[in-house]
Amino acid sequence: MWGEKMTGNNFDVNYEMVSGDIIKRAEKIALILMDVDGVLTDGTLFYLPGPNGDAIEFKGFNSHDGLGLHFCHAAGIKTGVISGRDSFATTERARMLKMTYVYQGHLKKIPSYEEILQDCQLPNEAVAFIGDDFTDVPLFNRVGLACAVANARPEVKQQAHYVTAQTGGNGAVREVVEIVLKARGFWPPILKQYELIESAKIS
Amino acid sequence: MWGEKMTGNNFDVNYEMVSGDIIKRAEKIALILMDVDGVLTDGTLFYLPGPNGDAIEFKGFNSHDGLGLHFCHAAGIKTGVISGRDSFATTERARMLKMTYVYQGHLKKIPSYEEILQDCQLPNEAVAFIGDDFTDVPLFNRVGLACAVANARPEVKQQAHYVTAQTGGNGAVREVVEIVLKARGFWPPILKQYELIESAKIS
Amino acid sequence: MWGEKMTGNNFDVNYEMVSGDIIKRAEKIALILMDVDGVLTDGTLFYLPGPNGDAIEFKGFNSHDGLGLHFCHAAGIKTGVISGRDSFATTERARMLKMTYVYQGHLKKIPSYEEILQDCQLPNEAVAFIGDDFTDVPLFNRVGLACAVANARPEVKQQAHYVTAQTGGNGAVREVVEIVLKARGFWPPILKQYELIESAKIS
Amino acid sequence: MWGEKMTGNNFDVNYEMVSGDIIKRAEKIALILMDVDGVLTDGTLFYLPGPNGDAIEFKGFNSHDGLGLHFCHAAGIKTGVISGRDSFATTERARMLKMTYVYQGHLKKIPSYEEILQDCQLPNEAVAFIGDDFTDVPLFNRVGLACAVANARPEVKQQAHYVTAQTGGNGAVREVVEIVLKARGFWPPILKQYELIESAKIS
Repeated sequence: MWGEKMTGNNFDVNYEMVSGDIIKRAEKIALILMDVDGVLTDGTLFYLPGPNGDAIEFKGFNSHDGLGLHFCHAAGIKTGVISGRDSFATTERARMLKMTYVYQGHLKKIPSYEEILQDCQLPNEAVAFIGDDFTDVPLFNRVGLACAVANARPEVKQQAHYVTAQTGGNGAVREVVEIVLKARGFWPPILKQYELIESAKIS
Repeated sequence: MWGEKMTGNNFDVNYEMVSGDIIKRAEKIALILMDVDGVLTDGTLFYLPGPNGDAIEFKGFNSHDGLGLHFCHAAGIKTGVISGRDSFATTERARMLKMTYVYQGHLKKIPSYEEILQDCQLPNEAVAFIGDDFTDVPLFNRVGLACAVANARPEVKQQAHYVTAQTGGNGAVREVVEIVLKARGFWPPILKQYELIESAKIS
Repeated sequence: MWGEKMTGNNFDVNYEMVSGDIIKRAEKIALILMDVDGVLTDGTLFYLPGPNGDAIEFKGFNSHDGLGLHFCHAAGIKTGVISGRDSFATTERARMLKMTYVYQGHLKKIPSYEEILQDCQLPNEAVAFIGDDFTDVPLFNRVGLACAVANARPEVKQQAHYVTAQTGGNGAVREVVEIVLKARGFWPPILKQYELIESAKIS
Repeated sequence: MWGEKMTGNNFDVNYEMVSGDIIKRAEKIALILMDVDGVLTDGTLFYLPGPNGDAIEFKGFNSHDGLGLHFCHAAGIKTGVISGRDSFATTERARMLKMTYVYQGHLKKIPSYEEILQDCQLPNEAVAFIGDDFTDVPLFNRVGLACAVANARPEVKQQAHYVTAQTGGNGAVREVVEIVLKARGFWPPILKQYELIESAKIS
């Protein structure tokens, strides 16, 4: 099967290389929070004039991330966004994906985070956060599993427990989701549901 | 002619390297079905507010794929999409390209597939399917030629007969179309129609 | 000056490596015609619903190409597009750039080409054409300078006199424009106008 | 921590490699001016029909650049754009980011530059300019710190004091901003504000 090793713009993550420390942290995660711009998107922001002359901001989300978040919710793992920007596109994407927490418009993210902890009654160790820029670092310093995307600022990567192989808007969130689902033991039922195991391997 | 070997973001597929097994499978194909997000597009989803406050989802399709599907239809090979998402952009793209089957909005794709088989009265061996994520695998396990795009999830590539060299939204569908057209014997008339053979080679 | 050798997604063309044959062909060019999708754009097509439920197609053009076409027009070299698709975005882009010929909506491009020749009273040798797919090849077989973009189909590159180092929507048109302007002797006045020569080199 | 060295499409700038000459120039900067297309964006321009049939141009800006410009303003360094094109998207982006100067629609940029100098009463040495194409060179020949983005035309890079490692619309502006903030001594307080120093390093 030629071409099999060619993966285009998609870097295939080798989960066997994820360190034991990351797996131990991932085993405790019950809530995955994330930044939006540069994490659920590649960081590009577009502006169009709206009907009243107001600007409409829009941006691009990724379908692999979407299915990953769907897997999470089916497994009982909650998700949410904490973003410095407030935009229709984020609200809509979070609604469609049935994310539990949507906090937008605050550059200082700790108050939103504390409201969320209060609501879900989880300890810091049960929370993962995925970020890319300086405003995400105060959260990195609290959560059980701090993940920087491949396109994060260098200083942000330094503060992370885990740096994704994939970039924001191109599968970085799916990568973290899969690490958590695997560590939590939810992966084999998903593989089975989609006929990826216990189905005759085609040949 | 300098620059001739430089192919930018386009990986030139070497059809002579396609295996005999793939060619034998391609010889039987009369219908090419495909997923949309990550296959006909690069998987990026944009959202804009519509006139009633509803969200409008849009995404980017590829012109090389478009001409390839036109070649298919001219050769009597039918095409269609089976997508988990329902969107105006997909409906419009499928209509413009004159695809025969447009099934949207079902994460479980087997029922749509069975309706299509019922309608076109073709056996599994006469169908190719192009996919990128877990929801496509049950179809891979049925069709005669299962193709994963270069940006497919690693588990999905493992279940495919063929993995494209090109990524979704960047020529992956054109690549599968050309393999089928070549295996079916439709390629030389196309080359002739566009003066690529039996025309004086310019020099 | 660190970073000077790093060119990101931009491949710096070395004009000294352009062959003598290409330069001889470029010396005669008075009109540069081009395809749109995959040439003035990267081939991606987006669809949005319009006010009457009709679809609006849009796509992305490149600012470097735009300034290159402005240089052409200032030097008295005419330009135009011959595209298989008809879209508002192309009409608008051609209008803004003051291109002379805008033919859209015909997969067969020879009749449009002949109308243009009739109008401008130029011989084939005075025309360059830039294309990326099979529908462009009949024109390649007529014009004095046939250019395929880096992302053109392999068969199309084979029929071209020149293959650009840059991809469509990312400077391919600027590259052809500069080859023609240099061959025609228009380059030094442009460099002078923008203080690139006969200005003290900053250091 | 596997994956730590993988940076996806983000090239991590090594500020220790910035030359002493650039640092000396950056120490004097109190105003950062920049082109828009190809600098604050990747140079791609999209067109949609507006409600009156007029065209709406839009383009993509970068979230890392946005936070960088926010850091500048907080440190009392002014910013502005001088662009050959006039567009709603630029006006909106500049407004949101609270840039001081927004000049659009003039291919000749010197008059706008002189109006700005008149207004802010700064000498040439206190101004940085970031550009990518020929229209930016006359400004390069005046300002204290002339920066070309990685995707700038080769002739433009030759005239620059500094060439960014990152491309326009993908962090080039953030890179220049950080060089200036570091040279001016504003970096440590920013690191402290976001808990990047004097916080327990997580491990």
